[in-house]
Amino acid sequence: MANKFDVLGIGNAIVDILTHVEDDLLQSLEIPKGSMRLVDELESDSIYKKLGQCIECSGGSAANTIAALASLGSKTSYIGKIKDDQLGAVFKHDITSIGTEFNTPPATSGPSTAHCLVLVSPDAERTMCTYLGACGQLNENDIDEDMVRASNIIYLDGYLWDPEPAKAAFRKAINIAKEAGNKVAFTLSDSFCVDRHRNEFLHLAKNDIDILFANEDEIKILYGTDDLDQAVKMAQSDCEIAAITCSAKGCIVTNKDNIIAVEGRTVPMVKDTTGAGDAFAAGFLHGISQGKSLAECGALGNLIASEVIAHLGARLDINLKSFVEENT
Amino acid sequence: MANKFDVLGIGNAIVDILTHVEDDLLQSLEIPKGSMRLVDELESDSIYKKLGQCIECSGGSAANTIAALASLGSKTSYIGKIKDDQLGAVFKHDITSIGTEFNTPPATSGPSTAHCLVLVSPDAERTMCTYLGACGQLNENDIDEDMVRASNIIYLDGYLWDPEPAKAAFRKAINIAKEAGNKVAFTLSDSFCVDRHRNEFLHLAKNDIDILFANEDEIKILYGTDDLDQAVKMAQSDCEIAAITCSAKGCIVTNKDNIIAVEGRTVPMVKDTTGAGDAFAAGFLHGISQGKSLAECGALGNLIASEVIAHLGARLDINLKSFVEENT
Repeated sequence: MANKFDVLGIGNAIVDILTHVEDDLLQSLEIPKGSMRLVDELESDSIYKKLGQCIECSGGSAANTIAALASLGSKTSYIGKIKDDQLGAVFKHDITSIGTEFNTPPATSGPSTAHCLVLVSPDAERTMCTYLGACGQLNENDIDEDMVRASNIIYLDGYLWDPEPAKAAFRKAINIAKEAGNKVAFTLSDSFCVDRHRNEFLHLAKNDIDILFANEDEIKILYGTDDLDQAVKMAQSDCEIAAITCSAKGCIVTNKDNIIAVEGRTVPMVKDTTGAGDAFAAGFLHGISQGKSLAECGALGNLIASEVIAHLGARLDINLKSFVEENT
Repeated sequence: MANKFDVLGIGNAIVDILTHVEDDLLQSLEIPKGSMRLVDELESDSIYKKLGQCIECSGGSAANTIAALASLGSKTSYIGKIKDDQLGAVFKHDITSIGTEFNTPPATSGPSTAHCLVLVSPDAERTMCTYLGACGQLNENDIDEDMVRASNIIYLDGYLWDPEPAKAAFRKAINIAKEAGNKVAFTLSDSFCVDRHRNEFLHLAKNDIDILFANEDEIKILYGTDDLDQAVKMAQSDCEIAAITCSAKGCIVTNKDNIIAVEGRTVPMVKDTTGAGDAFAAGFLHGISQGKSLAECGALGNLIASEVIAHLGARLDINLKSFVEENT
């Protein structure tokens, strides 16, 4: 595997706007706790006006994973659509500052760079309202074919299935990767997202996905069963590798020969679950790139996830390579 | 004191861009640790490119104080210049979200909303590089005379002395406040800022300032002495009230009759000193508005400052009113 990049992420390029909220605000907004909901600009403005002081940090599911992978020492690249505005500059700075190659041409007109209102409730659960903005403009022409060919793994997030033109970009990237003999990794992203795109995701799992990421709810919804064991077996049958996160319990990881449960790490004080799944995927994929065993990949995923939930926000500004050296 | 506002803040409207840095980066940038340095857009871009992942949060010295005052339950208003861009919208959201009245018309052309690169080193000290952008457009016309008259205290930060047109705005506000019989509070902001404007600040202290805020370094530079006791006595002679912060040791507060040292609070883990002085001023001024004794005002300043340095960033998104009730 002498490709230029270990992992190329393709996803929605988003800046998070984070704040703490009380449960009654979520109730009055009628947003299910823990979900990701798409909102238009007006709805976003209306919710934003109800929030207290916020902080802004780069987000986007695949981008969070790529940022953590870069911090772990993987060679990374990213494709996603920003606009040439202030939040776009923030997004670009943050992902490139840790060595990720990111050259997708920014939109020069149309909606602004995407943002996501991340509402962290007292139990540390996060609920998200996403305004996709410029992400809606990602299209086939944005897929840098050389970059896809030069990446051992392409990692796609299910949220990318929401903006219509991105689907074509998504499929183009998958086809190029498969032709080049590279691996396709995919995360189901969110149970509501699986619900919206279930049939297409099932088709992808059967035909295109080599490495599948999901949590318990998402995998059960995908396979239409309440039985986790059954869902895991179906994922094992469809994909070369699957990694199912089970919150504090850890994860279940599978390849064609094994199903292994890897115990989670104890986190003294969970502050914010934003980005836990993204961080898990980073640790797991870093393990894959390093040729680690399936169980080791699961443990590395658990480790990075446990660190991100001990902090506010989906990204860490610590050097994860040193962190892993000190904690394994 | 039946005015509409307890405190009106007038200052540079800035969004902070915060990140952790190692000491050698500060050395290579040749920026004295702990200082605030003004940079133009090119310098700012060049430094930003050298930084890792950042978070963005509203800042600006007087604005931080006003935000904390609002959270404490004071009635607050603010005057400062943003542009009608994304970071301007962030600044406006954050300060108004906690109930502060802020109506200064944003600039519609010219430089973007100001930002400050805040470099937090491993010892939790912060070093700041400020691009003043739209703040340079604040002028006399932005001073809402009714708002100044309706504010028991106007609070000005020394940094406002840096953009030239703001000085005229500053003087206009002082004159209106004095005519209305309201108090003028002022913070020296930063030792380099005092150095830049020493003679003018001395003149203000003697003639215009009722409540003076400074730290040890700043007050010694202002009065041209290495003897802290002497500097404090000079401040006592010039101003009705002075509050001198002494880092972990606490503060020295004076009125015409007394000089009182108020012991600082123990902070188990100092994470980031950004905004410590701003937070102190908020606690102190809230005490003044509540008719507390001089020593109580100093203790309240110490309390709010001790909380802000236990977190990253200059603002807290906790309700400070409840926090004070639980901690006093």
